[in-house]
Parts: sequence; structure tokens; C-alpha cells
Amino acid sequence: MIGRLAVLGVGLIGGSLARALRAAGAVEEVVGYGRGQANLRKAMELGVIDRAECSAARAVSAADMIVLALPVGSMAATLSEIAPQIGAQTVVTDVGSVKGSVVSAARAALGEHFRRFVPGHPIAGTEQSGVAASFAELFRDRRVVLTPVAETDPDALERVRSMWQATGAQTVSMEVSHHDEILAATSHLPHLLAYCLVDTLACMDDSRVIFDFAAGGFRDFTRIAGSDPVMWRDICLANRAAILAALGQYRSDLDALMSAIGRDDGDWLLELFTRAKRERDALNGGRR
Amino acid sequence: MIGRLAVLGVGLIGGSLARALRAAGAVEEVVGYGRGQANLRKAMELGVIDRAECSAARAVSAADMIVLALPVGSMAATLSEIAPQIGAQTVVTDVGSVKGSVVSAARAALGEHFRRFVPGHPIAGTEQSGVAASFAELFRDRRVVLTPVAETDPDALERVRSMWQATGAQTVSMEVSHHDEILAATSHLPHLLAYCLVDTLACMDDSRVIFDFAAGGFRDFTRIAGSDPVMWRDICLANRAAILAALGQYRSDLDALMSAIGRDDGDWLLELFTRAKRERDALNGGRR
Repeated sequence: MIGRLAVLGVGLIGGSLARALRAAGAVEEVVGYGRGQANLRKAMELGVIDRAECSAARAVSAADMIVLALPVGSMAATLSEIAPQIGAQTVVTDVGSVKGSVVSAARAALGEHFRRFVPGHPIAGTEQSGVAASFAELFRDRRVVLTPVAETDPDALERVRSMWQATGAQTVSMEVSHHDEILAATSHLPHLLAYCLVDTLACMDDSRVIFDFAAGGFRDFTRIAGSDPVMWRDICLANRAAILAALGQYRSDLDALMSAIGRDDGDWLLELFTRAKRERDALNGGRR
Repeated sequence: MIGRLAVLGVGLIGGSLARALRAAGAVEEVVGYGRGQANLRKAMELGVIDRAECSAARAVSAADMIVLALPVGSMAATLSEIAPQIGAQTVVTDVGSVKGSVVSAARAALGEHFRRFVPGHPIAGTEQSGVAASFAELFRDRRVVLTPVAETDPDALERVRSMWQATGAQTVSMEVSHHDEILAATSHLPHLLAYCLVDTLACMDDSRVIFDFAAGGFRDFTRIAGSDPVMWRDICLANRAAILAALGQYRSDLDALMSAIGRDDGDWLLELFTRAKRERDALNGGRR
């Protein structure tokens, strides 16, 4: 049971976490902070938070658990701002899609409290943003990756793990750098490809006709291009090396594909498509 | 009303067309042909076709309407095979995703019957294939592009238009080359990017962990990589020029994105993501 939970950034993830913990009876009081006043009012109306505060420092006062659910580019400044207000027993965690940059920022900002900072990342979400899109079931049967470091206090880790388990999620531990490489491939790369595809088509002469003829496959493929631009800018900057490595590999595979089409190599194409279909079908089989 | 309909290729598209026309009471008899015996038996069991024939030439005998619903690479040989059996009043159409290559093949194979060949392409489908995946509602409220040429008989065009309207689809006319350029951008490009992404990830050292952590966004993005490999090989070969042009543009946009990430250009990234999100959100607004 968490007594007072401070949620910094009451959006899709922060809001869904608060809702899930309330639904599970795992939290007594939720205090919210965020830059958008309208969003905070909405969070109050929806009963997602009990109280809104006008600064991050005030929001974390006397909190038992602090969750940073902000774009990763805002983490450093917010951690510095709240550091003086963190209690000795308070646990701090985050939900950022990149862990290396957040761990560095926390190490620099939190001083003695860094021991009780547990880096986390729920592998869940939709392309929506804001508290209005949040729902209590978002994390059910999903994974939450925790990336504790050498200094991380085992008790703090256990509390964060319990919190996520109360939402119906499964927690797994991973090295910081391994997390960032895996996510670059499985999440960051597809988001960038989707943004890029929508923009490529939008800049074509015939873009109106092109979008007009977009069928279901295109819609699914580009759904994630509706995601929050600030969040994704921050992810690109924070996970640059791993993202560039994944993009570089993809581009070189795309070159090979273009070259096969250029030389009319039907066998090569059939082999690629068959291999990819097999992998994709296997993913359906092992549905999580 | 179509008296006898011959469906060459009783898969997702051919099977759904037969089902839709039956449901609308717009066809009396459906004769099916396809290379897969098991699939044809299934089509009989499901009542999608009344009769299966063991050759395309036999299947089209005394047909009022012939629909070629085969991979585009099989069109030329099949058109040559059926040409001698086509009746003077029979209308022939196809559902291929590429129109230029099919029109050329039809012109070469059909002789005097080319006048009654109406090139068509329903913008509908799923990543499934085979008659078991077919359903009568597949074309409802979807577009069917018809690309008649100078020689096309207006009566034949009208009959094909009526057939598709009976399925609940809307028909639109377009130039052959325009169709192939539009589809290269809006359908062929995303399919190739999805196949390529799944293969890039599958070839990474950590591929098992990567697929294990694939969340909803990745699943949606790569759903179309489950599509039929033969169909897509044929599309690549048949629409090579337009596909290479679209891929080339995409690749150059991807280079610009990589370069922006490499130089930490957050403003550029934010602008791209904001622009793409606006386009993608507009697509949701104008839902078809």
C-alpha cells in the first residue's frame, strides 16, 4: 500500500498508473503535477488525482512514492527541482522510454536519494496522450522493465515492483544499456519509420489523393505517427547512439531490398518476404 | 445480375467477391479455379463457389463475367490460357494491385476480347490469404479503382462497375499509370518497409528478446508483414519503377532524419513529428 503517491506528469501513463493503483486499492492519496492546467483540472474531474499542485516541488512533499511520467527531456530539470523535498524513506521512479539518460540525470540530481531511485519503463501505451486517454487496464499483462543499478536499494526496488504488480503488470529486470538497445529496435525504430513515411507521402505532389486512397494496412502502419512529438523528440536525443545504430542497420537492409527490386531478383524478394512473414506470424502465435 | 461468374483464384479477394455477390443476390452461379486443391475444396464446403474446375480454360467456359484474382505475376499466362474460351459477350476483369503490367498482358493475350477487359483494383484486404479468410463485407464502403483504357468498351465498364457496387463498394476511375504511382506510395511502400523492419530485427543478435518486448505499436506496424509473399514479390516486379521512386524518396527522407538525430537537432525533429502527427490525425478525422 502506498500512502501518498506523487505523479509528475498526469498523462496517458501517469494517469493510467494512478487509476490502476486506485482500482486495486493500492494507494491512499494521489497528488498530481503537470504543466498543463487544463489537463490537471481534467485529472481532478475524472478522479484520477485527489489534489493538483502548481509545482513539482510542492507535489512531492511528504510523498511515499514519486513517479516521474514526463517526456525524458524534462527529467533532469524536474529531478533537480524536487531533490530538496524528497523524504528519507521516499521512493522515486520514472516511466521514461530511455533509461541511460534518466539514470545519469538522477545520479547527478538526487545525491543521497539516488539509492532510492528505481529506473522503470512500462512497455505499454497507445498513440494517445493526456489524462483523458488514460485507463486503469493499460498495464494489465504488460511488461514493466526495471533497470536498477549497483547503488539501487533493494527495498526501493521491491516497492516499485509491488506497485507495478498491483496494476496487473509483470516486472522484469534488465541492464540500462540493454534496455536502451532493445527499445531502440522494437519501439523507437518503428515510430521513426512511421513518422518518416507519413511525412514522405505528405510531401509528394499527389499527397491528397495518396491519403485518400490509404487503406487499412497504411492506417495500422502509421497509427503510431499520431504519438506525442515532444516525447519522441526527447527519445531521439536521449537514445541517439542506439537509435542511429538501429536506423543504420535498417537503411542498409532497405538498400539491399531496393537493389533486389532494381535487378528484378524475384527469388531474393520471395525469400525475404517469406522469412519476414514467418517471424511475424510467430509473433501472433506467442501473443502477449 | 451476373448469370455465370468465373473466379480465377478463390482467395481472400476472389472469395470475398463471390460471397458479397451471393449475399446481394447479384449472381446465379459461381465457378472457381485455383492451383490449390485444398483451398478449392474449402471454397466448395463454405458455399463460396458452386463448382470447382481443374483448369482456368474450363472454368471460364460460358461465363458472363470472368474475374482474375491471382497474383499479378500469374496474370499473363492465365489470360493466354483462357483467351480462346472467352465468349463474345463475356466481360473480363481483374483485381491486381498493379495495373500497368496487367493491362499490357491483357492487350497481348486477349486480341479482340481486350475491348471487354476492364482493369480493376479493390482497395481492400487484410494480411490474411486463402478462401477461409474471405467474407462478404470486405468491400463495403471501400473504393474500387477501375482503370479503363482507350479501347475499353463502355458496356463492359458499366457491368464491372455494377458488380462492385453490388458488393457495397464505391468505384472510381483513374489512369493506369496514376493508379500505379498512388498505390506504390500508399500501399506498396508501407508493405515493403514492414517486411524489411521485421527482417532487420530478426537478423539482430538479440532478436528473441527484441520480439519478446514488441508492444502494440510494433504489432500494428508490422501486421502487413504477414501478407502473402508471392503476391508481394509479383507486385515488386510488376511495379518496379514506381516502387523504386517511392523507396528512393523515403530513403532520402530517412537520411535527413538520421542526420538531424546525429547533430542533436531537436527543433528539426519536433517539426517533423508535429507535421506528421497533424497529417496522421487528419486521416482519422476523414475516416473512410
